[in-house]
Amino acid sequence: MLYKLFTAFIMLSVLNVTAQKALPIYLDDSKPVEQRIEDALSKMTLEEKIAMVHAQSKFSSPGVPRLGIPENWMTDGPHGIRPEVKWDEWQQAEWTNDSCIAFPALTALSATWNRNMSLLYGKSLGEEARYRNKNVILGPGINIYRSPLNGRNFEYMGEDPFLAGQMVVPYIRGVQSNGVAACVKHFALNNQETNRHGVNVIVDDRALYEIYLPAFKAAVQEGDVWAVMGSYNKYKGLQGCHNNFLLQDILRKEWSFDGAVVADWGGVHNTKESIYNGLDMEFGTWTDGLTWGASNAYDNYYLAKPYLDLIKSGEVGTKELDEKIRNIMRLIFRTNMDRNRPWGSFGTPEHAAAARSIAEEGIVLLKNKGAILPLDIKKYKKIAVIGENAIKMMTVGGGSSSLKAKYEISPLKGLQTRIGNEAQITYARGYVGDASGNYNGVVSGQNLTENRSAEELKNEALKLAKEADVVLFMGGLNKSDFQDSEGNDRKELDLPYGQNELISALAKVNPNLIYINISGNAVAMPWEKEVPAIVQGWFLGSESGTALAAVLLGDVNPSGKLTFTFPVALKDNAAHAFNSYPGGDEVTYKESIFVGYRWHEKEKIKPLFPFGYGLSYTSFQYSDIKADKINITQDDKISFSVKVKNTGKRDGAEVVQLYISDIKSSLPRPVKELKGFDKVFLKAGEEKTITFTIEKDALSFFNDKEHQWIAEPGDFQALIGASSADIRAKINFRLK
Amino acid sequence: MLYKLFTAFIMLSVLNVTAQKALPIYLDDSKPVEQRIEDALSKMTLEEKIAMVHAQSKFSSPGVPRLGIPENWMTDGPHGIRPEVKWDEWQQAEWTNDSCIAFPALTALSATWNRNMSLLYGKSLGEEARYRNKNVILGPGINIYRSPLNGRNFEYMGEDPFLAGQMVVPYIRGVQSNGVAACVKHFALNNQETNRHGVNVIVDDRALYEIYLPAFKAAVQEGDVWAVMGSYNKYKGLQGCHNNFLLQDILRKEWSFDGAVVADWGGVHNTKESIYNGLDMEFGTWTDGLTWGASNAYDNYYLAKPYLDLIKSGEVGTKELDEKIRNIMRLIFRTNMDRNRPWGSFGTPEHAAAARSIAEEGIVLLKNKGAILPLDIKKYKKIAVIGENAIKMMTVGGGSSSLKAKYEISPLKGLQTRIGNEAQITYARGYVGDASGNYNGVVSGQNLTENRSAEELKNEALKLAKEADVVLFMGGLNKSDFQDSEGNDRKELDLPYGQNELISALAKVNPNLIYINISGNAVAMPWEKEVPAIVQGWFLGSESGTALAAVLLGDVNPSGKLTFTFPVALKDNAAHAFNSYPGGDEVTYKESIFVGYRWHEKEKIKPLFPFGYGLSYTSFQYSDIKADKINITQDDKISFSVKVKNTGKRDGAEVVQLYISDIKSSLPRPVKELKGFDKVFLKAGEEKTITFTIEKDALSFFNDKEHQWIAEPGDFQALIGASSADIRAKINFRLK
Repeated sequence: MLYKLFTAFIMLSVLNVTAQKALPIYLDDSKPVEQRIEDALSKMTLEEKIAMVHAQSKFSSPGVPRLGIPENWMTDGPHGIRPEVKWDEWQQAEWTNDSCIAFPALTALSATWNRNMSLLYGKSLGEEARYRNKNVILGPGINIYRSPLNGRNFEYMGEDPFLAGQMVVPYIRGVQSNGVAACVKHFALNNQETNRHGVNVIVDDRALYEIYLPAFKAAVQEGDVWAVMGSYNKYKGLQGCHNNFLLQDILRKEWSFDGAVVADWGGVHNTKESIYNGLDMEFGTWTDGLTWGASNAYDNYYLAKPYLDLIKSGEVGTKELDEKIRNIMRLIFRTNMDRNRPWGSFGTPEHAAAARSIAEEGIVLLKNKGAILPLDIKKYKKIAVIGENAIKMMTVGGGSSSLKAKYEISPLKGLQTRIGNEAQITYARGYVGDASGNYNGVVSGQNLTENRSAEELKNEALKLAKEADVVLFMGGLNKSDFQDSEGNDRKELDLPYGQNELISALAKVNPNLIYINISGNAVAMPWEKEVPAIVQGWFLGSESGTALAAVLLGDVNPSGKLTFTFPVALKDNAAHAFNSYPGGDEVTYKESIFVGYRWHEKEKIKPLFPFGYGLSYTSFQYSDIKADKINITQDDKISFSVKVKNTGKRDGAEVVQLYISDIKSSLPRPVKELKGFDKVFLKAGEEKTITFTIEKDALSFFNDKEHQWIAEPGDFQALIGASSADIRAKINFRLK
Repeated sequence: MLYKLFTAFIMLSVLNVTAQKALPIYLDDSKPVEQRIEDALSKMTLEEKIAMVHAQSKFSSPGVPRLGIPENWMTDGPHGIRPEVKWDEWQQAEWTNDSCIAFPALTALSATWNRNMSLLYGKSLGEEARYRNKNVILGPGINIYRSPLNGRNFEYMGEDPFLAGQMVVPYIRGVQSNGVAACVKHFALNNQETNRHGVNVIVDDRALYEIYLPAFKAAVQEGDVWAVMGSYNKYKGLQGCHNNFLLQDILRKEWSFDGAVVADWGGVHNTKESIYNGLDMEFGTWTDGLTWGASNAYDNYYLAKPYLDLIKSGEVGTKELDEKIRNIMRLIFRTNMDRNRPWGSFGTPEHAAAARSIAEEGIVLLKNKGAILPLDIKKYKKIAVIGENAIKMMTVGGGSSSLKAKYEISPLKGLQTRIGNEAQITYARGYVGDASGNYNGVVSGQNLTENRSAEELKNEALKLAKEADVVLFMGGLNKSDFQDSEGNDRKELDLPYGQNELISALAKVNPNLIYINISGNAVAMPWEKEVPAIVQGWFLGSESGTALAAVLLGDVNPSGKLTFTFPVALKDNAAHAFNSYPGGDEVTYKESIFVGYRWHEKEKIKPLFPFGYGLSYTSFQYSDIKADKINITQDDKISFSVKVKNTGKRDGAEVVQLYISDIKSSLPRPVKELKGFDKVFLKAGEEKTITFTIEKDALSFFNDKEHQWIAEPGDFQALIGASSADIRAKINFRLK
């Protein structure tokens, strides 16, 4: 065959080409990554390096096309993979392959107190990102819940640094098992949205190290997170995205972070600070008066031409640039250049099931007088569902975490599907929220967009409530501005849209009112005594309605616990007690380490619902607390065990919590602090022994004079219980 | 460390998850591909399969997001990687990372007669596609040059089936070495643009098998091409995209093609034919009166809901669908699911150098009276460059091969850069082409968009020509409609825009006129005797001007040869001689196998420039032709050798061509046919021996009665020469 002869010739040529050009080290998978990085670095031009340290579009930054180093493609956000946007505009690109599974908001995840749920969340979300060819997920958010007014609390993991750290680590590992980087945010002290681009946070070192940093430290040191996002706010007068104290002194030096520091979108304001203070990649900058969308805006980025000019003029060297490239290359080798990473998957039944499991485990039963829940639909044949949040789409809105969900099952739809013809469901909106809502519900004979007065809506709801055997009020907040939403804080602790009055009025005509609070934040409940049952329903994503129906109807026994305190009134919260929120150009964290339950316990202010609190349809009995020793040394471990028994008639899960109290300390310390937890699943009647083992860290505080963690010898107490306010057993021990 | 303990626990969980879920076979790289395909197939739902067989956007088709099977992303075209377009619109998406290197048009590549250039082209283009995350390049085009009026000839590889087959194979191997599929097009018989969606091609089996199919067969059997694109035109009354004769009988059964058959955009017109006749993937369909861009247009594709409905109704089975999925999965495993493929690169100096090398080797010197070329700029100090094509951007336009090039060096710019201050260059446009031109040239003091009359432009050119020592006329065709462009054919063989008159007039005032023909097609040159030199300059891509300047100035010794015949007049072409072009609803290829030089030689019609022809700045002497035997059997090989010597003073390359003539045959045969070629590089004075080895195939014709290739015993002649019209040596042999 003549063809064959030529083919052989051609093959030889191909082989020759290959043989002549030995694989460069940076492309050789068998070489150590650090060696590959140095090789790649040595081959890059100055311009190629400058290109890599800033965005080229809304969500991407260049690789080195000449060298075959792929681009970085980032994606919001923590709760699902954002749809494609246009190259240089925020509008959606109108692709049809990008409808994601929406996972529960991170508050709901944290309320599961289940590390496996966090792993499942991260793994599933990472798979969605991987399938969509994104190599960095811009999340999770792990800023500490300081005030219930913070509009972005719903994206975070509550008020306790230990809990947030424990929950973020498996999330990161899950995401990154896909060859997709997590990017923890917003580092650091981004605890309010009000004036977020300008406010300078003044915080003492104890609060910084004990409250605001531990979750980030866990993310870096235990989660091995590959990227960290700088925050908008200032600390010591410098923005988080180019803050030497946070990024260099703490993140790089104290914690040995070797990943990439990514700016929050629009968080960069200064070229030299960005060069020297530890930022690696600039995104989303408004520059030189150019509006977003100007075609050459990216060249005007602080780390673009201005940086190049400084280097070319000799005013700035290239040492810092090379270090940024090393960090970025490490990110790329860990993600887009990892040949062995899996392929991901998108919008799958498995992810929907994961979203549902997390949602079901995160829902918190706050009150259940007379065991009205689970709802007995043999008994309650006429169910009035009332409230806008029964039908409002919550996956849309709220800022960067807004999604284009493949589907979202509304609470009403979830109930209708679950109940079918077994009972009669009526629906009334009851009140009008923000006009721009997206609705998703099956509401026969009702035009949701029609204009009706508040009075008409209220009367309709009262009528339905009166006629019903039970009322399910689906209220709370939503994703509109000044609710649970990025960019603005809430204006008050109270429910919006006249819900308080409506709930009281409804409870008067039908005492069987069950209030389901859809929110990512605490709300005031002045009518709490007027209703028999309260459920914290969060923002639960695609499977919202399914999960809520499962818990309300008793298919699932609730096992979530609060990860932040519900105060009775705003003044009960520490930040507000000191009137140190939201500040103006500055905000001083006057409460120091006494955040959340630490404040309530110190001041003996009874909350509406305490940290760690949540009911079950069964009951748990704690007994037989034991320590394996009474005295420990600085290098020792100590273990505490407790027996927990399901004493009710249903299978259920209990979040067993270990708090440590420092009986006497040279510096003020909280009454007690969470230092361990375990979620234990117990069949009806089953008993298990739970063991917690701690070391010196769990006893330590940050000594700001000596700038180090110290565990002072002396007496400590281990407290084990079902919430911060429901301690079931205590045991003393001594640190030698 | 407490953290560490929990980390260990988490790691165990991750491992458990992994262990519990054994890697399915289709994701197991260690398993044979066919086994993985069957496993994937067994896991897909009917709806997932239907989704995979049609587009989801202008250039992509779904994978199976549930199973982690990636999408397919196609890209035009054969000459460079097309910029991103919007999801469902043809407009560019205005990304800024997609400016490619434009390679020479495939006519120029074929004119190199250098398989290594083809390999380099494919490898480089494949790297560009790979970096841009495209897994299928919609090319190369290998339809045979039948008429010089075909608007799309510039995308193909000339008139000879052996040459096209030899050149396409390394291109495919080069592309596919990147884990990117080539998709040869347009299969088959798409030899004109006129009425391309409607015309039914009537061709006899000899012409089909001997002329129109061999390059495709080589692509499949020697190039192992992974995808084939169906053509718009009909054959035996069926469109190429769902043509049982071409796709099933020939491609699948006779050639054992196991890749994917992709429809040309808008080439599908019938659901059942698409189901049964061998199409795998439908793209670009206009459906049900929905305009392009209608949001749900894709569901109305012939292989979308209509196919699903037929299966659900039981009218159609799933056997064909499963076979399509197998073909598509094979494509995906070979590309997007090949973990070991390289990362690609984009817009690199290496690719620019490749484009330049190919361009330089493809340029054909057609006439060089008095050795006026290479241009002696010591002698010719005043150079007048005249003609629109000196400044017109040729990488834009022409249909689907239109590019967004990173840069394009115009002929004028190339000359200016090369010559610098060594001589004076003046420029005049000379004539006005189509209004919508893109221009790229440095033309001091001249506003290219001003409105000047043809007379003014001509007079300006004549004035410059008169004042100059030499005139470089850069004319020819362009990428506008009815020139070298998809969708329409040319209207005449003559040059457009009054160039003939202008050239004659210029030659009168300055006899040193060198005509550079920028085109992908033959043109008439009624003024051929009036000019001393003619260069065929093709469409050369990003490095056009550099390559042309290098050849014109003698930095590069031209070595390209024509791959199609330049007829003196249109009637000299076979298709036109029979008035069998372009037909109406039907076109009959009355000339049968006598296409191109086969017709000219049979009819003894002297062409303007013959097939295989091209001059050099040096000269080559052939001598000492030998055969290794006189008689061969049907299973034997025979080798011919010839000595070729560079007898001039410059290094150069010669394309040595082997033609075979069947002295006596039971069926009509061409006078001779190309059956071997080799491009040999010879230093001045150097001599090499070139050897060609052939087998029975090279002696065979297609016996349409018996439907098989037959080599008839008897006398043959091997002819070796510098072109089809310049045979330097002959030798007879006999097939037993």
